[in-house]
Amino acid sequence: MQHFDLIVIGSGPGGQRGAIQGAKLGKRVALIEKREAVGGSSINTGTIPSKTMREAVLHLSGYQVQPIYGMNYRVKDKITIEDLFFRVQQVVRAEGSVMQSQLSRNGIEIMHGMASFTDATHVKVTSERGVAEIEGDKILVAVGTRPAASSKVPINGRTIINSDQIFALPKIPKTLIVVGGGVIGVEYACMFAVLGVRVILIEKQPRLLAFADNEIVEALGYHLRDSRVTFRLNEEVDSVEELPDGTVVANLKSKKRVSGDALLYAVGRQGNVDGLDLANAGLAADDRGRIAVDLDYRTSVPSVMAVGDVIGFPQLASVSMEQGRIAVGKAFGAMVVSNPANYPYGIYTIPEISFVGKTEEQLTQEDVPYEVGIAFYREIARGAIRGDSTGRLKIIFHRETHHIMGVHIIGEGASELVHIGQAVLSMNGTVDYFVNTVFNYPTLAECYKAAAFNGLNKLSKFEQLEEYTS
Amino acid sequence: MQHFDLIVIGSGPGGQRGAIQGAKLGKRVALIEKREAVGGSSINTGTIPSKTMREAVLHLSGYQVQPIYGMNYRVKDKITIEDLFFRVQQVVRAEGSVMQSQLSRNGIEIMHGMASFTDATHVKVTSERGVAEIEGDKILVAVGTRPAASSKVPINGRTIINSDQIFALPKIPKTLIVVGGGVIGVEYACMFAVLGVRVILIEKQPRLLAFADNEIVEALGYHLRDSRVTFRLNEEVDSVEELPDGTVVANLKSKKRVSGDALLYAVGRQGNVDGLDLANAGLAADDRGRIAVDLDYRTSVPSVMAVGDVIGFPQLASVSMEQGRIAVGKAFGAMVVSNPANYPYGIYTIPEISFVGKTEEQLTQEDVPYEVGIAFYREIARGAIRGDSTGRLKIIFHRETHHIMGVHIIGEGASELVHIGQAVLSMNGTVDYFVNTVFNYPTLAECYKAAAFNGLNKLSKFEQLEEYTS
Repeated sequence: MQHFDLIVIGSGPGGQRGAIQGAKLGKRVALIEKREAVGGSSINTGTIPSKTMREAVLHLSGYQVQPIYGMNYRVKDKITIEDLFFRVQQVVRAEGSVMQSQLSRNGIEIMHGMASFTDATHVKVTSERGVAEIEGDKILVAVGTRPAASSKVPINGRTIINSDQIFALPKIPKTLIVVGGGVIGVEYACMFAVLGVRVILIEKQPRLLAFADNEIVEALGYHLRDSRVTFRLNEEVDSVEELPDGTVVANLKSKKRVSGDALLYAVGRQGNVDGLDLANAGLAADDRGRIAVDLDYRTSVPSVMAVGDVIGFPQLASVSMEQGRIAVGKAFGAMVVSNPANYPYGIYTIPEISFVGKTEEQLTQEDVPYEVGIAFYREIARGAIRGDSTGRLKIIFHRETHHIMGVHIIGEGASELVHIGQAVLSMNGTVDYFVNTVFNYPTLAECYKAAAFNGLNKLSKFEQLEEYTS
Repeated sequence: MQHFDLIVIGSGPGGQRGAIQGAKLGKRVALIEKREAVGGSSINTGTIPSKTMREAVLHLSGYQVQPIYGMNYRVKDKITIEDLFFRVQQVVRAEGSVMQSQLSRNGIEIMHGMASFTDATHVKVTSERGVAEIEGDKILVAVGTRPAASSKVPINGRTIINSDQIFALPKIPKTLIVVGGGVIGVEYACMFAVLGVRVILIEKQPRLLAFADNEIVEALGYHLRDSRVTFRLNEEVDSVEELPDGTVVANLKSKKRVSGDALLYAVGRQGNVDGLDLANAGLAADDRGRIAVDLDYRTSVPSVMAVGDVIGFPQLASVSMEQGRIAVGKAFGAMVVSNPANYPYGIYTIPEISFVGKTEEQLTQEDVPYEVGIAFYREIARGAIRGDSTGRLKIIFHRETHHIMGVHIIGEGASELVHIGQAVLSMNGTVDYFVNTVFNYPTLAECYKAAAFNGLNKLSKFEQLEEYTS
């Protein structure tokens, strides 16, 4: 039986980065992947395809230059699913091969097949070629998730689909029902709305993206409605049916009937733990297939760690990678530094949302005295050049110490821009940094300066006011 | 006679920011502008028009999506000067009005007319409405520059032009001669090359952009040649003539004759000091119209400061703004913090270049032991999604302390991306910051992490090597 220092199950972002971390530490690493291609759902069905589709949508629709050339400007008149898929295929293939070569370069042994535990340090790999059992001192579970199914929603892979089946749509529908106001549902709602599809978004909660800053989500809501998206908040789907003429109908618990040409079901994700035989290792998953871990990503069994989507929130590729790196680093006693409080969130809606640190709601709850500085893209030259009137950047800082507590951005480039604020926040900097720093002109980064001035001006007015009233 | 605490001459970036700084300190400020519109050449003929034209060129040519849709892909087939000018006019007008309202909001008195010194604290303003004299305790000269003229180059505003006259070209030429390999010449060379124009670039020095990192300039050269730009380095223009058939010919000192449909003369800029009567204030400019200042932007006359292009290098709008803020802040005894060593440089070539800190060449000369980490856009997911195979990001850090010494980027988004490195550099951070930080996925910012790993790996190999050889 082959022996490894580390066995990684799953080659998505968490598994891949964990495997490489092991290799960098000089460990013998096996990586088990059930698909033919490495990369997990991030590369093959999730992050990369959806972000690539988004770029194709933005380019072909001409959305970003419509403020300049007019609301009816299009780069391509009739956009088809094939137009979008063309670009996606290219990128998925390229990224898969980049990752494959990165794994080989690091001497990681890739085994294709289904993994299952035989005990806490042994894994069986089953493929067409047969069954092999290998031994590992440490085992990293990074099996990811898949779209959750519901008995109420008869997925047919054609008109009633989940987020893995976007490119199986026979054509771009005229009307699309999206069930689920989380990241995946909202991202696709945006893309289809920009393509001119009438989107109806159904969400059980009273608001979208519950973990994001309220002001930013409100702005997103404004833009979604502007793109003719209909919100059905506080609503729950009771049943979904396809009528003989092909119309898809969602019956809501409130007795409303919502109909469209297609329905995307994007409520929750389910851990890929079936067939893993977790019980053989002395482990169990919860009803959503999630595995519980501690702060170092160790399960209750000393030899087994778990990272990525299978451990739950936030289910972001960037965070999964870091979890993989930390879990394996710590498992082998390496020095690994990481601060989850400074992880950024990127949500590829249209416009894009990104943030780092705390929200106003969190700080209010924690009784931290903060002030807010806001800048609008339209106020700065780069915003005018881009014709972007939607972008906003908000800095939340401590009223007394001026330390940065959070940065929240909505607008194109948000997911890149947030890293400037993240650096200052991580290095314990203050809002004054932005006042005293020169930014390239004309760039969106100047929003930091504008927001800093805005926030500090509020502060001085308020302090004057206090002087007056005392 | 009206009395002001501060008189500012010129409403470009330096003057505008200086005036606002004065107003924020509660001073009475007059701003004299000779044009009808505020904003100086930055808004009216320089930075904003050229950066807007660049966006129009990138969009209409389809340059950025050609790696995806093919080298012959175009968004618009026949691009005209009007197509480009359309967007430029919009933005110039919008920015002018943003700035106008910003100045009014701050209670700054705008006077239109030509300014001239009568003595070190008095300025005469001459306009169609007559002459007014005003008094100022402090006077800030921010008159900017204009394209330098040469007796060898008979500018005709049609086929032989300077950089203020781009939109006066009757049409987009088939062949364009660009004289001058500085920022302005190279930026326009890139834009016209992307439009399919055959560009011949003539520069006296052996390389372009002498102040930028050699590796980055080399990469730019590679891409320019790839767009069929012909370089004539180490060459000087002896005379320029227009032939009867409209062909423009540049005769070089080396006896070569270079011909084209149009010629852009972009060698140097001349300070707008004529008519200022500097001598009345006890001041003088050098032969290129530049005014000498100290580190706080004070001239040899205590009441007079000068900022912006008129004081020479680097002639960047972003830096001029900061100079205006500092000059006025210090003149009125306010606390102003700024560190020119951390000013970023943004060069809007195609691909874009941006950097902060020192170059390899500078560090070698200073005997600082550094190491370099490189990342290529093509290695990271966002690069693949964009189809960008040209981008590179380079981090220079101290071998022993790991402190960031410089960040140099070529590739789309460079001028935004550099600010992340700038924050870490300014806050005295190390390359390890990038290893221990989570970046949104997929973003270009991940290049920092890739470059950091690359650099640190080199270091550890080298250290191993030292161990082996000792």
